[in-house]
Amino acid sequence: MSVALRHAKLGVGKVNPNPMVGAVIVRDGQIIATGHHDHFGGWHAERSALEAAKAQGVSVRGATMYVTLEPCCHQGKQPPCTQAVIDSGISRVVVGSSDPNPLVAGKGIRQLKRAGITVEQGVLRDECDALNEIFMHYIVRRTPFVLLKYAMTMDGRIATATGRSRWITGEESRRRVHEDRNRFAAIMVGVGTVLADDPMLTCRIENGHDPLRIVCDGTLRTPLDAALVRSAHETPTIIATLSHDEEQARPYRDAGCEVLTIDADAEGHVDLQALIRTLGERGIDSVMIEGGATLAWSALHARIVDKIDAYIAPKLFGGATAPSPVGGPGVEDPADGYRIVNLTVRTIGDDVLLEGGVDYVHRNR
Amino acid sequence: MSVALRHAKLGVGKVNPNPMVGAVIVRDGQIIATGHHDHFGGWHAERSALEAAKAQGVSVRGATMYVTLEPCCHQGKQPPCTQAVIDSGISRVVVGSSDPNPLVAGKGIRQLKRAGITVEQGVLRDECDALNEIFMHYIVRRTPFVLLKYAMTMDGRIATATGRSRWITGEESRRRVHEDRNRFAAIMVGVGTVLADDPMLTCRIENGHDPLRIVCDGTLRTPLDAALVRSAHETPTIIATLSHDEEQARPYRDAGCEVLTIDADAEGHVDLQALIRTLGERGIDSVMIEGGATLAWSALHARIVDKIDAYIAPKLFGGATAPSPVGGPGVEDPADGYRIVNLTVRTIGDDVLLEGGVDYVHRNR
Repeated sequence: MSVALRHAKLGVGKVNPNPMVGAVIVRDGQIIATGHHDHFGGWHAERSALEAAKAQGVSVRGATMYVTLEPCCHQGKQPPCTQAVIDSGISRVVVGSSDPNPLVAGKGIRQLKRAGITVEQGVLRDECDALNEIFMHYIVRRTPFVLLKYAMTMDGRIATATGRSRWITGEESRRRVHEDRNRFAAIMVGVGTVLADDPMLTCRIENGHDPLRIVCDGTLRTPLDAALVRSAHETPTIIATLSHDEEQARPYRDAGCEVLTIDADAEGHVDLQALIRTLGERGIDSVMIEGGATLAWSALHARIVDKIDAYIAPKLFGGATAPSPVGGPGVEDPADGYRIVNLTVRTIGDDVLLEGGVDYVHRNR
Repeated sequence: MSVALRHAKLGVGKVNPNPMVGAVIVRDGQIIATGHHDHFGGWHAERSALEAAKAQGVSVRGATMYVTLEPCCHQGKQPPCTQAVIDSGISRVVVGSSDPNPLVAGKGIRQLKRAGITVEQGVLRDECDALNEIFMHYIVRRTPFVLLKYAMTMDGRIATATGRSRWITGEESRRRVHEDRNRFAAIMVGVGTVLADDPMLTCRIENGHDPLRIVCDGTLRTPLDAALVRSAHETPTIIATLSHDEEQARPYRDAGCEVLTIDADAEGHVDLQALIRTLGERGIDSVMIEGGATLAWSALHARIVDKIDAYIAPKLFGGATAPSPVGGPGVEDPADGYRIVNLTVRTIGDDVLLEGGVDYVHRNR
């Protein structure tokens, strides 16, 4: 299953909104074929492994298949994997994650068993589930999995008092952020970040996939000469705004941006729940929010944040006016703070990464 | 040595500015006596263990003594331990930490060896050194070991935007702070913290020692009805100020506070380097800075901070105006941030504690 997981990861950034899946066929303790879901529209992992065996002229009759996710049993872009497995003569299937969709979970397993195949489930389930946190979320809710990512000093600063932020964290952390840009379908920033940093938000790893770029910009303040606008013909870019003014929108459209008008929320800002519903309908399974403090607060307030990645660098900036990662009005009472659950702690180079989910339900104690 | 370390810790809060030391006497793999330095002016650990053996009528001739710190060889409040060990007939001594004072280090060991005793050094040295981080610092520099402690949310806030901070961290973290109040000779806060929180700064653990309380208050703004002032007859309290105005100082003195006039530094604030020199001369071996953000910055800027304890709670407050742990003007360039070295990460209940030293030398890259 570990080998299957490694193969599954080869699809990172290319299979969305499908899951990453790996499959390994084993006989007598020897791996005879491997496969993975390589790109959206391509073979599923099970089929890929079976084809690899066939290409080598190796029979899989009576062999065992390890697969990181329960094989699908419905016709999609590809024929159902359960049928391909049954037809191949495989006699035993070992599964990592169950299908997260409660409407179909277990159905693939039952089809295999009915055909006389021995099935074992839940092997390295946690690792297999973690690999597809995005898919597991999206397939059930049909809205993107939203990660709020920020980098701060050990005294909670995302920039110095003069607004400078290059760099807070070390190379290893910044590399990991680019891996996430590859993994996520879209990146979202507030217009304040565009005005302050003029970022490109592309993925700077080799053969990486550039995410869709989304700017939350209620009143269309994004400069027409911003790096994002100037590169919009090459890298898809959405400006989400409240403005209905076609005159104002035209130059952005001419530059290659999509101007997406969203209704206002109760506070008069871009309604982030409406925005992610729209993105979800378009098959965007994941959004990483990369800045700044105002958008981070709005996203928490709209309860769209599913996970937080807080990179903490071992340095202190000080500065009573230096910004911290979450702005807006904030909570009034400590007991009303947003609770982080399932916290994990690890070091990335010299930095510390705190990761966790947000518990909106038990916020008020 | 682990047992000796456990015994050493029994002296916490009572031996300053002496080190905590534990000793265990072993024969044939059996512990026959234990001892520790219990309070300032009391027996050293070696003598305490030897007396314990004597009281039980047990001979220590030919036995091994484990001691967490190199035995002293000079006459102080107590006769030199090396002589007591030699006279006892102990044949082997196992030492944890070396004497940190470079002028005497190794001398105790040499005296033991010259008397024919086998000596082994450096057993559990890191644990033994860590136990006495305060003593190791103070004995060499004669200025107190200064810990900057703060508690913040995962978004770097020490209070909500409305100034409320009870509570940020969980019970286990708050308990550890009280253990540090017991361990440290003094607690320092800025007058802003007194005005905002009106704290007592006492140690709320059973049989704990209340640290000396120090308020940095350049212009004597501390209210006369502050909890610190009203309890100054019971718990020693220093108000460090620039003021030379005797009229202004008198009511604080009448309330039991010491008003300590310190010269101004280049920025016109209480010169913290001069303050800790004065404290060091009085035998104060350790100061924990507990708030607020302005004092934290001044202390870093004055380079008096030796160690940082950053407690991070798994919650988010947000709030563009909510305070962060280090204020003041702050640095302008990220490369000028204060670097934290020897970072350790651990969980305390639901919180995360980041601990590290401050590298002032390599601050500018």
